[in-house]
Amino acid sequence: MRVDMIDEMYPAVETPALIVDWSRVRANVSRMASLARQRNITLRPHIKTHKLVALAQLQVDEGAVGITVAKLGEAEVMADHGLTDILVAYPIVGGTKISRLLDLAQRVRISVAVDSIEAGAALSRAATERAIRLPTLVEIDTGLRRCGVLPGEPAVGLARALSELAGLNLVGILTHEGHAYTAGVPGGLRTATLNAAEAMAATAEQFESAGLPVEIVSMGSSGTAFAGMGQPHVTEFRPGTYVYNDRTQVALGAAHNDDCAATVLVTVVGRTSAAEVLIDAGSKLLTSDRMIVAHPPPTYGEVVGHPDWQVVRQSEEHGILDGPGINELAIGDRLSIIPNHICPVVNLVDRVVVVDGAECNAMWVDARGKSQ
Amino acid sequence: MRVDMIDEMYPAVETPALIVDWSRVRANVSRMASLARQRNITLRPHIKTHKLVALAQLQVDEGAVGITVAKLGEAEVMADHGLTDILVAYPIVGGTKISRLLDLAQRVRISVAVDSIEAGAALSRAATERAIRLPTLVEIDTGLRRCGVLPGEPAVGLARALSELAGLNLVGILTHEGHAYTAGVPGGLRTATLNAAEAMAATAEQFESAGLPVEIVSMGSSGTAFAGMGQPHVTEFRPGTYVYNDRTQVALGAAHNDDCAATVLVTVVGRTSAAEVLIDAGSKLLTSDRMIVAHPPPTYGEVVGHPDWQVVRQSEEHGILDGPGINELAIGDRLSIIPNHICPVVNLVDRVVVVDGAECNAMWVDARGKSQ
Repeated sequence: MRVDMIDEMYPAVETPALIVDWSRVRANVSRMASLARQRNITLRPHIKTHKLVALAQLQVDEGAVGITVAKLGEAEVMADHGLTDILVAYPIVGGTKISRLLDLAQRVRISVAVDSIEAGAALSRAATERAIRLPTLVEIDTGLRRCGVLPGEPAVGLARALSELAGLNLVGILTHEGHAYTAGVPGGLRTATLNAAEAMAATAEQFESAGLPVEIVSMGSSGTAFAGMGQPHVTEFRPGTYVYNDRTQVALGAAHNDDCAATVLVTVVGRTSAAEVLIDAGSKLLTSDRMIVAHPPPTYGEVVGHPDWQVVRQSEEHGILDGPGINELAIGDRLSIIPNHICPVVNLVDRVVVVDGAECNAMWVDARGKSQ
Repeated sequence: MRVDMIDEMYPAVETPALIVDWSRVRANVSRMASLARQRNITLRPHIKTHKLVALAQLQVDEGAVGITVAKLGEAEVMADHGLTDILVAYPIVGGTKISRLLDLAQRVRISVAVDSIEAGAALSRAATERAIRLPTLVEIDTGLRRCGVLPGEPAVGLARALSELAGLNLVGILTHEGHAYTAGVPGGLRTATLNAAEAMAATAEQFESAGLPVEIVSMGSSGTAFAGMGQPHVTEFRPGTYVYNDRTQVALGAAHNDDCAATVLVTVVGRTSAAEVLIDAGSKLLTSDRMIVAHPPPTYGEVVGHPDWQVVRQSEEHGILDGPGINELAIGDRLSIIPNHICPVVNLVDRVVVVDGAECNAMWVDARGKSQ
């Protein structure tokens, strides 16, 4: 969204605000859906990026088989508003969490990732008590060193143990190959993605040899979608950020600046004593996230239309812009900023300002703050 | 708050949660109030750290003359709930913002920081129209290179120009010496603080010589309070973080670990393939802020009682803990984490869990998300 358009059409929009250009969102959603269809792969987008029911519904309307969430609170909000097929891609641990998961499973189709026998055994006991058979995916660590057991024998071992537990219905394997983001572009990203896909394929074959069910082989992120979708054995992808995009996705080659659908509208509120420009958004809106790339630049965002005007420093409510010709800006000017990483930015606002042609409406971020 | 106490007394508290130990809050508030009394200085705490009406009221009950806010939304919430003397320490720019500021000024005592003639002139015009004389402080940049004009002649020049504008009632000068945090401890912090105080004192004297009013000379932050309070000419201090404290304040020598009143309760949800420990809070709760010190360590928090167990990596909803003996931890264990920087953490939660002796209650974060 160009600021001059916002200023002309919606001068009452106060800053700082997260502006969502809905026509770009539609284009982004449609593009990923087309790619998935071409590559003959199921799409199960991660809604942690937007946390909006309307956008999750748009993704499903465009062909997604269901959605992915990280937190039960997100799943509950989405289920309350009509989403019926939800993967909780997060280790569910503790009595209350298990109980909430099973409550959900009695209302909508819930599947869950498991990466430890402890978590699996506790889920099994509780599901059995309620006569539920919970679709379960073994999470594989293909290099991120976060959740998951290693591919191959460790994955087969866990799957075998889980398959013997009542209450769990083993349906496949999943991974998040986020480590590919920092492997360097374009070669490193592609290689890391293909290596992850290969590890998943090899593990799937071992599952088959061992007689373990593996209907679903799920990978995914936005940055790895182009390289990863359509690799042998991979059935499902779970990209998230592509609905909005950000500086990271642009740097990864997964989007252009014009595909960035969510930007932070700010006002120039002053100048520093070093003749830099002060804007009314800092880490409490842009976050302190660096770009998720191999060598992240030390800046926190860039100005739409002026990629060399960047947020070079920030404090909680102040951003400091610098770059060639920055003194063209006057106090009171409004600008749009593309953040480094849009997902945690969305997590900071109660509502987004959705611009769609001549319409401009606030939309509540349904699952904001659902960290539990 | 010790986790074993939380687990014993409040096992139903779900994770991740921001736990506030109210007895520590009372002690922190009381300690800063005592220091201010001893040093004969006015306290006007910045409420951006906690955003809670109850805590702002406690600060005032303990002797604070009023409060400081960064954003008008914060001021509005505080005014709605009985706070009557509010400094908006932020450049107010744009018609809507000015109008909201003046609406507030017709309800409670509002003062405002100004650091440009552009912002001052616009405020003057609007205040004059409403027959308001707005208490105004000239903001000085004593080294942070954020808001403010330089001390000495630039400050005097702006003050003289502002003093000729109707609608503004010049009452003094203010600075935020946040640059002292990264100057090194203990010597650099102290030197930078004293230099800032000296620049403010010299500027105040120049104001007096020029016949400009300078009743208030306001500085402040928590980390610089001990060195800065009581320096010549300084009349007011505006610390914020001291109510909760965090790893940064401990590193600055401004607090001990036992003074950290707000900690993130988490659950161990798994292990990584590198035998590290996975917890259920990441950057969407701990934030990506590094400690605000000279050479910030590359970690995002430390475990209460185990300072060498630190969050070594994180993604949005996952934290990865490592440190000697980390394998003592089992899936399902609960821990408390001291964040690097508590203020943006508070900004991420809708409610805090306040523990006070045998009582444990959720408290809504009144001014959460008030970024406008």
